[in-house]
Amino acid sequence: MKRVAVVMGSDSDLMTVKPAIATLKKLGIPCEVRIISAHRTPVEAAAFSSTARENGFGAIIAAAGKAAHLAGAMAANTTLPVIGIPIKSSTLDGLDALLATVQMPSGMPVATVAIDGAQNAALLAAQMLSIEDEEIALKLADMRAEMTKKVLEKDAKLQADLDKILAE
Amino acid sequence: MKRVAVVMGSDSDLMTVKPAIATLKKLGIPCEVRIISAHRTPVEAAAFSSTARENGFGAIIAAAGKAAHLAGAMAANTTLPVIGIPIKSSTLDGLDALLATVQMPSGMPVATVAIDGAQNAALLAAQMLSIEDEEIALKLADMRAEMTKKVLEKDAKLQADLDKILAE
Amino acid sequence: MKRVAVVMGSDSDLMTVKPAIATLKKLGIPCEVRIISAHRTPVEAAAFSSTARENGFGAIIAAAGKAAHLAGAMAANTTLPVIGIPIKSSTLDGLDALLATVQMPSGMPVATVAIDGAQNAALLAAQMLSIEDEEIALKLADMRAEMTKKVLEKDAKLQADLDKILAE
Amino acid sequence: MKRVAVVMGSDSDLMTVKPAIATLKKLGIPCEVRIISAHRTPVEAAAFSSTARENGFGAIIAAAGKAAHLAGAMAANTTLPVIGIPIKSSTLDGLDALLATVQMPSGMPVATVAIDGAQNAALLAAQMLSIEDEEIALKLADMRAEMTKKVLEKDAKLQADLDKILAE
Amino acid sequence: MKRVAVVMGSDSDLMTVKPAIATLKKLGIPCEVRIISAHRTPVEAAAFSSTARENGFGAIIAAAGKAAHLAGAMAANTTLPVIGIPIKSSTLDGLDALLATVQMPSGMPVATVAIDGAQNAALLAAQMLSIEDEEIALKLADMRAEMTKKVLEKDAKLQADLDKILAE
Amino acid sequence: MKRVAVVMGSDSDLMTVKPAIATLKKLGIPCEVRIISAHRTPVEAAAFSSTARENGFGAIIAAAGKAAHLAGAMAANTTLPVIGIPIKSSTLDGLDALLATVQMPSGMPVATVAIDGAQNAALLAAQMLSIEDEEIALKLADMRAEMTKKVLEKDAKLQADLDKILAE
Amino acid sequence: MKRVAVVMGSDSDLMTVKPAIATLKKLGIPCEVRIISAHRTPVEAAAFSSTARENGFGAIIAAAGKAAHLAGAMAANTTLPVIGIPIKSSTLDGLDALLATVQMPSGMPVATVAIDGAQNAALLAAQMLSIEDEEIALKLADMRAEMTKKVLEKDAKLQADLDKILAE
Amino acid sequence: MKRVAVVMGSDSDLMTVKPAIATLKKLGIPCEVRIISAHRTPVEAAAFSSTARENGFGAIIAAAGKAAHLAGAMAANTTLPVIGIPIKSSTLDGLDALLATVQMPSGMPVATVAIDGAQNAALLAAQMLSIEDEEIALKLADMRAEMTKKVLEKDAKLQADLDKILAE
Repeated sequence: MKRVAVVMGSDSDLMTVKPAIATLKKLGIPCEVRIISAHRTPVEAAAFSSTARENGFGAIIAAAGKAAHLAGAMAANTTLPVIGIPIKSSTLDGLDALLATVQMPSGMPVATVAIDGAQNAALLAAQMLSIEDEEIALKLADMRAEMTKKVLEKDAKLQADLDKILAE
Repeated sequence: MKRVAVVMGSDSDLMTVKPAIATLKKLGIPCEVRIISAHRTPVEAAAFSSTARENGFGAIIAAAGKAAHLAGAMAANTTLPVIGIPIKSSTLDGLDALLATVQMPSGMPVATVAIDGAQNAALLAAQMLSIEDEEIALKLADMRAEMTKKVLEKDAKLQADLDKILAE
Repeated sequence: MKRVAVVMGSDSDLMTVKPAIATLKKLGIPCEVRIISAHRTPVEAAAFSSTARENGFGAIIAAAGKAAHLAGAMAANTTLPVIGIPIKSSTLDGLDALLATVQMPSGMPVATVAIDGAQNAALLAAQMLSIEDEEIALKLADMRAEMTKKVLEKDAKLQADLDKILAE
Repeated sequence: MKRVAVVMGSDSDLMTVKPAIATLKKLGIPCEVRIISAHRTPVEAAAFSSTARENGFGAIIAAAGKAAHLAGAMAANTTLPVIGIPIKSSTLDGLDALLATVQMPSGMPVATVAIDGAQNAALLAAQMLSIEDEEIALKLADMRAEMTKKVLEKDAKLQADLDKILAE
Repeated sequence: MKRVAVVMGSDSDLMTVKPAIATLKKLGIPCEVRIISAHRTPVEAAAFSSTARENGFGAIIAAAGKAAHLAGAMAANTTLPVIGIPIKSSTLDGLDALLATVQMPSGMPVATVAIDGAQNAALLAAQMLSIEDEEIALKLADMRAEMTKKVLEKDAKLQADLDKILAE
Repeated sequence: MKRVAVVMGSDSDLMTVKPAIATLKKLGIPCEVRIISAHRTPVEAAAFSSTARENGFGAIIAAAGKAAHLAGAMAANTTLPVIGIPIKSSTLDGLDALLATVQMPSGMPVATVAIDGAQNAALLAAQMLSIEDEEIALKLADMRAEMTKKVLEKDAKLQADLDKILAE
Repeated sequence: MKRVAVVMGSDSDLMTVKPAIATLKKLGIPCEVRIISAHRTPVEAAAFSSTARENGFGAIIAAAGKAAHLAGAMAANTTLPVIGIPIKSSTLDGLDALLATVQMPSGMPVATVAIDGAQNAALLAAQMLSIEDEEIALKLADMRAEMTKKVLEKDAKLQADLDKILAE
Repeated sequence: MKRVAVVMGSDSDLMTVKPAIATLKKLGIPCEVRIISAHRTPVEAAAFSSTARENGFGAIIAAAGKAAHLAGAMAANTTLPVIGIPIKSSTLDGLDALLATVQMPSGMPVATVAIDGAQNAALLAAQMLSIEDEEIALKLADMRAEMTKKVLEKDAKLQADLDKILAE
């Protein structure tokens, strides 16, 4: 099975990125987790992405904040799909990272998810692999059904608890 | 080969979406182009996306403006990857469509590209298919090499023409 | 009397939505409170809104955050008025939910209130019912008079307490 | 039948507001169209809204740009639902009018539609009247069915014309 | 001497507005502090501002948050200068109040100061009175000289303390 | 009578500033119009504002775009009221000039009007002078009454012309 | 003398960048003008910047739009100062390029100028060279004096022409 | 060696500016740290910057928040490069300071770094000095190599610790 790379620009992003790793593990998709910076380790960034396909990766998830160039730098060196997670930092509420990730020029897409949307990045990678992998497709469908079931249960529980909640 | 769906919320989006169709054709990827509105034809939207995988699609590209719900509505009914193109409309310069497309809740990713980024949406779909399709991977690599070559040529031409350009 | 539906996309929205429920109760307007997600339970969302009128509802209040599609998804399946409450989430201060709720395309209005404006959503629903219901109209007028009285009292109290407050 | 008031802050808003008037006429809902400014004719604004209910209005549509106070000023003097249309002016792309219309304080809702969303304002007013008026409800359902049909026809036409369009 | 009115839309604004009152007191300018809401007490708002000049006021300071209409509503009923303080509330960081206060239509200026800029509102009122009042002009010049002196002292102190501060 | 200074940062701002000059003339308020740049002629800017009071000015209107420092630079050298007009330039729709003008630090107010709000700047200056000048107060009241009358006339005309307008 | 590199991400940026080249020429500073894309020619981008110092460059000006990574990519491979020009493109008015250029992470500065601020980028490069080059310092001082003189002349001309201009 | 000036508009900016001072010290670059306000001490601001070159400075770092004019005011009086640090204050998340610093008019560049980007401001100053100072160039290269090494080490450590981190 193709692997998924989870790359972050700084170790300070790890807690935000963790749900991506957990989701991939839950889906049984092998992944490699790396700290690679587009600016501090540009050689490694280029090396990693330009060899990602031959190294058995099917998709690259790249998370970065502020002037978030990591996903774009990865995309410049591979034709694999690159998924960008814009990370919220101490100013501008993630808007800077969102625009720096999503507004890529023609020819170089980055599949951008919501600010701090690590779980969705993993699901998107899994969806990509599921195009030709029925097993992952089934697992995604199960996970989706589980999500639906939880909402229905919460809705049912709300009907039972509503008076108590309103009285709080 | 898996097909790619190109869905737009209104026929007024067609000129913006055209580069996506052209790019898929250039890459030899079969596509189906549809006008389906999340709000005006919600039944068709749900029907199309919930059967997309069994109908041989590998990815869905969805383009919409303003409170752009089309990509999210598609994503709610399939586990295939859905690529969202936020369309710029007459106010707010596309920011509304960008946020309505990219800020999806946990569990429901939309792979968002730049505002009006139709060509990149097609390339992203092709990249997804290329995970397990070497032929598409090769075509993408060729297209990338072509892009690089063109920039180098323009750079070379600029060196020759610079004095003339500056004199203009 | 027509009922009002109060629908939220996630149980995490309940505390923000509570003032809507409390206000409806205070006005004696029967309501049904539901957790229904446009994305996780799209079938239920369509079913609920498409049968809302025949089920005795007069208006639907829909609260959601981020790429807030719930109100729009409800509006797509009913001709009852749908009131949208954009919910502030962890990034972008509610601007994403506001734009995703209010910027609806032609033909599909969502009556949008302020970010986290649950009380106003309930009052707006009551105002809608009051068009043909004098009793509700009277209650709204009483509530309004009460609000005016409170401001006048606070103003009077301020005159008495001002020196003390400034000395703090 | 209850009438709908369509109020604009300046005669320069008339072209933007016209679709609201046309839509109300199409639905057979009587309306009164007025130029009343919250700032230049504050006495008239208060007089109009405070007597709107007794004068047979069921809803007030108020359109204004920039620091758009008209809808809020109307709402302060009536318990009828007030629908606000934020008008885009020469700077800030309508964001100023949107925020000044939608971010109303607790107790004073304004049902805000999209920037320049005049048609939706009229439809929202009709939806409000439809709560207790089956005839309007039927007309809205017909109009909705018509919209759906048009999208389906455009989609069918697109299938026929696609090759020609792409060749352009 | 002309008095200055300090009006706030809600008692929750009092702590933010306090520096305005303190500054006026420090300058010996008589002021009246009021809670008047453009929406909850529109009659009082119109009455207060339309009689402000004859009641001996020279300027009105109006503080409000969200869709901040108070300053505009005051301005609509007087030709005295109205100074607007946009108040930051729980969402959008005060941008809504800033735009709703400053973007007034032609003919109705509001002299807007920074978000939560209560002290500056009072200084601006004093500057207005100082046009024809030499005593206030002198006090403002003294206060300004005091401010300059304090910066120079802090700069001098920094030179002395810098090594210690850097070592912290 | 005190004069009003109308200062702009660049001659390219003249057309935007013209309504301020015209309005002052209409009110019979003497004014001096200057091109002074905070950055290109900082010595003149400081000299002008620091002597403005002794030179018979009652208020300074300063118009500038982009990182609009002119009003602030004037304010730093005088205790007269300074009115700032943020000018819209080729990017960011005037938001840069608005924030650079209005967000002044404590101690240094700039009375900011709407983006490109030249007429309002002049009216605000006149309102300031009117605090102690009954003649200007009367002229402002007349102008206001004229504005009200025009809106009422336009409203009346609209009633007459509405059918024709809708038929267009 | 050290040379200045003027690099743009696309030949479509040339007209916006031209004033930078013209200004450098006017100051007698040798420059090299290149089209190099961070994404389409990443190898060339890294090669150019990593050898820029040894190739006799003193500063690099990099212009790019949208998710503008060019300046950052240059900065990652050199310790020379890199000056970023954010280019306005068809959406978002240059805000995306501004944030993607200026919000660089710790350790990797980009000296950012205004959106489309090509002339200022050249002046900033010249200022950097002027630190150790008296001749450039003198030329910059002359240019500055020239700018001041022009504003003074325009101000003088305005005094002569004002009545005519107002009559237009 | 040329010195670097580190100027802040208020002593409240000191903690944000500290990393700039620390970084200059680490690089062995002499600096002078000053509190000078563009508005409260305009005479000192003009005096400092207009004599900075003759006083042996090579660059000026200026940090200020809100309507951040300090860097621009410095730039107006010197042809040395001025580096602006926009400081985040209590509202608008630093966007006001960013735009007021970076959007300088033609002829007056300010080399703007990220919001609160003090360390980068120091590095940028060092880069400017390094153009003609090989020793600083070497130190910058060493610091860069150190940064790269740290990222590589953190990446290596992550590989060792990943299972433990995920289990947390």
